[in-house]
Amino acid sequence: MHLLTFRIADPAATAEAAAAPRLGARLDGDRVADLTALASAAGVRLPPDLLGLIRAGEPALAVVRELLAGSPATRPLAEVSLCAPLRPGKIVGVGLNYVEHVAESHRTLETDRELPDRPVLFGKPSTAVTGPGGPIPHNADLTKQLDWECELAVVIGAPAFRVAEAEALRHVFGYSIVNDISARDQRRSGQWFFSKGQDGYAPFGPVVVTADEIPDPQRLDLSLKVNGEPRQDSNTRHMLFGVARLIADISSGVTLEPGDVIATGSPSGVGAGMVPPQFLQPGDLVEATIERIGTLANPVVDAR
Amino acid sequence: MHLLTFRIADPAATAEAAAAPRLGARLDGDRVADLTALASAAGVRLPPDLLGLIRAGEPALAVVRELLAGSPATRPLAEVSLCAPLRPGKIVGVGLNYVEHVAESHRTLETDRELPDRPVLFGKPSTAVTGPGGPIPHNADLTKQLDWECELAVVIGAPAFRVAEAEALRHVFGYSIVNDISARDQRRSGQWFFSKGQDGYAPFGPVVVTADEIPDPQRLDLSLKVNGEPRQDSNTRHMLFGVARLIADISSGVTLEPGDVIATGSPSGVGAGMVPPQFLQPGDLVEATIERIGTLANPVVDAR
Repeated sequence: MHLLTFRIADPAATAEAAAAPRLGARLDGDRVADLTALASAAGVRLPPDLLGLIRAGEPALAVVRELLAGSPATRPLAEVSLCAPLRPGKIVGVGLNYVEHVAESHRTLETDRELPDRPVLFGKPSTAVTGPGGPIPHNADLTKQLDWECELAVVIGAPAFRVAEAEALRHVFGYSIVNDISARDQRRSGQWFFSKGQDGYAPFGPVVVTADEIPDPQRLDLSLKVNGEPRQDSNTRHMLFGVARLIADISSGVTLEPGDVIATGSPSGVGAGMVPPQFLQPGDLVEATIERIGTLANPVVDAR
Repeated sequence: MHLLTFRIADPAATAEAAAAPRLGARLDGDRVADLTALASAAGVRLPPDLLGLIRAGEPALAVVRELLAGSPATRPLAEVSLCAPLRPGKIVGVGLNYVEHVAESHRTLETDRELPDRPVLFGKPSTAVTGPGGPIPHNADLTKQLDWECELAVVIGAPAFRVAEAEALRHVFGYSIVNDISARDQRRSGQWFFSKGQDGYAPFGPVVVTADEIPDPQRLDLSLKVNGEPRQDSNTRHMLFGVARLIADISSGVTLEPGDVIATGSPSGVGAGMVPPQFLQPGDLVEATIERIGTLANPVVDAR
């Protein structure tokens, strides 16, 4: 299933119906089923949002499957406004997780030349999340080096603490996309939190694809375009530390909770690595695409 | 007011009453008023927890003041079990924020010699929080360098985005203590997230003192003992970037929300800076004390 959170964009909708985020599913032909409305019509109980659904676990997912099996009424995707699928409790970012990105980062961003022997982890706060189409703020007073990073996002389903690598994927609810936006010139004594943690620096979505539809997360093409021009093009098989290893490693000390997100790192092709470097400017459109998930498109807007 | 979250430790309490965290206030003579029970008895509405109280703002605080003014029934502090005051949405840590700590950190932790010209920020996830008396896990498989840092914690009251320094303290709900525990040997390519973000690495409490009782957060003695031996002893006037400046700086890009916590940095006297270095071991007791707030005491426990 391709689960999502949306608002009704139909101008004829009442203000109240338009304002409240609703739980939905993307179906074939770019249509959206309104799961909140379907559950209500069928007289069944369903958590009102995706985080609640993840926490409720398999029984709630079974209800969703049944609702979608009944040829439900749908709306065209173009008639709704997508939101971020959920607000994660935490976002654990992974740096330097693709070989060629380690090389370009060493060349241009003063990181180590050697491949890391353990995952390089950092935090992005949940206030950084924005949804599909949400603006990436460009504040020229703070940065002249706003950069992109297309990353496979892992959405945790079951709590994970000290999970073995062989068991790790059982703790995954599904997969999505995070664009790990960075203000490269806001690294401070090497720490990435302010560089990567500002509001709008974590575009997330457009959907969460449940794990059953992605049996091998290490075989997914991922790519990114700026204004239609290709900038990143790789495959998740080139990760240094794969999803299962990341979950095992993080959970060796940090509990991962339902709805937490791991942003698994960027392939090469970031703006800082271009010759000469190129960075995002107001008016740009960034499109991050991952196979089996979709495209996450966000405009860069002047936010001085 | 000194607000806190507690469970009833009285063995005669029913299981249900003992299990649920309750909102309380510390009064003179080390006594605790049960605000949840007082509100219920008085027939007034009060959010059930401290985060709710912060979000509800001044009208809810006025209710609390009125409840406490009526010579309420209290319990001895020794008869209750304190919890972390609240679970923050995010914890923003500040590194290298006391001059002498910058020097010891350069000598022993490979950080820059120069004073930072902007606050050095990092994230600690909310899963790292533990309350007063909560165990600090010592996992010898992951670290041989578990270290302490006594820090003034700022609890945000009103949302803050692009707040001027002169207005910043208006966004503070109150102050508390965070012990910013670090596994020094788990820094990864310089990033501090896994080093400082593990479960139990953010002891927090014992109370949140409302901002009206601490008119100047830059005049507070803070100190830390390990097994009764003094390790840190300083005053918040030695911060490089004071509380107001930190709020202005962080909120220039990152929205601070009610209940978010800023851990404002450690003075000198960490274990890594001792000659020879000394680190925490299972069985140790760490006590962090800040003037006008109290003492946050946590045992170190073997957690292999």
